[in-house]
Amino acid sequence: MPLRFTEEYPEINGAFSFEVTRVLFSDQSPYQKIEIVETTHLGRVLLIDNLVMLTERDEFVYHEMIAHVPLFTHPNPQQVLIIGGGDGGTVRECLKHPSVEHIDLVDIDEMVSQACLQHIPSVAGKLTSQRVSCQFQDGVAYVRDTEKKYDVVIIDSTDPISVGEGLFTREFYRNCFNILKEDGVLVAQSESPAWAPELVRGISRKLHAIFPAVYFYQAHIPTYPSGHWAFGLATKKYHPIQNFDEKRYQQLQLSLKYYNADIHRGAFALPTFMQELVNA
Amino acid sequence: MPLRFTEEYPEINGAFSFEVTRVLFSDQSPYQKIEIVETTHLGRVLLIDNLVMLTERDEFVYHEMIAHVPLFTHPNPQQVLIIGGGDGGTVRECLKHPSVEHIDLVDIDEMVSQACLQHIPSVAGKLTSQRVSCQFQDGVAYVRDTEKKYDVVIIDSTDPISVGEGLFTREFYRNCFNILKEDGVLVAQSESPAWAPELVRGISRKLHAIFPAVYFYQAHIPTYPSGHWAFGLATKKYHPIQNFDEKRYQQLQLSLKYYNADIHRGAFALPTFMQELVNA
Repeated sequence: MPLRFTEEYPEINGAFSFEVTRVLFSDQSPYQKIEIVETTHLGRVLLIDNLVMLTERDEFVYHEMIAHVPLFTHPNPQQVLIIGGGDGGTVRECLKHPSVEHIDLVDIDEMVSQACLQHIPSVAGKLTSQRVSCQFQDGVAYVRDTEKKYDVVIIDSTDPISVGEGLFTREFYRNCFNILKEDGVLVAQSESPAWAPELVRGISRKLHAIFPAVYFYQAHIPTYPSGHWAFGLATKKYHPIQNFDEKRYQQLQLSLKYYNADIHRGAFALPTFMQELVNA
Repeated sequence: MPLRFTEEYPEINGAFSFEVTRVLFSDQSPYQKIEIVETTHLGRVLLIDNLVMLTERDEFVYHEMIAHVPLFTHPNPQQVLIIGGGDGGTVRECLKHPSVEHIDLVDIDEMVSQACLQHIPSVAGKLTSQRVSCQFQDGVAYVRDTEKKYDVVIIDSTDPISVGEGLFTREFYRNCFNILKEDGVLVAQSESPAWAPELVRGISRKLHAIFPAVYFYQAHIPTYPSGHWAFGLATKKYHPIQNFDEKRYQQLQLSLKYYNADIHRGAFALPTFMQELVNA
């Protein structure tokens, strides 16, 4: 019996589907429906509320780009906060930086991490690293209440619906600003400029209202809607290209599949329609 | 009755679908099945043999990127040959260059142009320009037999199946080389590095075997498989970044939605997995 998962793309009255060979995990947490399936060509796939969160085939694009761009913009990232990211992919990439002393991962839903640890260890395996503390609580409350200060804050959220909604508000970004050190760097996954332009525009406006400098960059993620994905980098001091620490990148000799020094710079070259969305 | 068109993505055992409100054109030419449909969110869509060739929503990405990158690499493009491209989108972009004196468009299938002229004039309307000659014949034979020499050759082909297959052979590229002037520039649409990596690798190897210099670049085209598209630029003399004629670009003040000076340079910054495909 051939099974097929279909993700609706309501932005275009469309859909994306692929063959599923086995359902490895399916449960409802207090927050959302979580499923992990095996596929013929995309490896294992994490679905939350019927949306593709990651596929083993192309998760490297998203995770390398959300982690290494801010971490090679900051000259010495030591304390990192990840909001969301319970699948562990962003943790895995951040841990490749020896300067990173500690990562706080704050995700509202422990079941995501547990399911991924069991079924997608290639992504989640580093969640148990000694340099990582996982705190399963509301990221909105965490950034409002914590006393800690960070070098880098990574907003690795789901879409701005349901539990993810609070991670796209101006108040949330203001609190992120407050818990960053005076030379801190924030990055926020920022949805699709091609199919959700008003979302991208909204994120840009809110970041611009709070941070002295905001720079958007992009990546090709085939299994996300439109395949064209935006990231918003907001900084207090550094410029992502002028301050790009290429020497450190070269020295580390990381084994990566998407990110490299050319991509670090080239990802900030935006199509004209996207420039118009993000330059408030 | 809601209608839905589905394009199969066999590379991943997947599919992409969208709502269709009206079928505007449907016919079988001697070469292929040609259909034009109206959609709710993608504008009018040209389908050939059940594959999306263009949507009014995002065709600008493909057509701007296949035309302006080679035309702003060459210092004075006057004589342009387009192989394929019967929909007229590449012609439309090339005509924005005042230096272009004449375009020969050679497409095997006149029905594509006729259908697009009637139903997608925003794309096809410039096919009747005085600076354009449309020749409906086999591009493989044309490049083998013509006595003309060109500054720029643009291979705006369908996929390397059925009628498009001959436009991906080494012999075809060799004949393109021969009809380029001594400082000529060729560009070939080169499929998806994400989902058809061996096709991209094959195109790269063939171009490298014939041209002294080959450079790949990429663009985000949401309605093509994976949304991640490659273009191969092969030159006899010019380097696409060192010889980029930014002054001419700025002077022309073109009204474009994707291409700009940043993108011209940034599009050549390739992900590591794609560098490995194209650097033979």
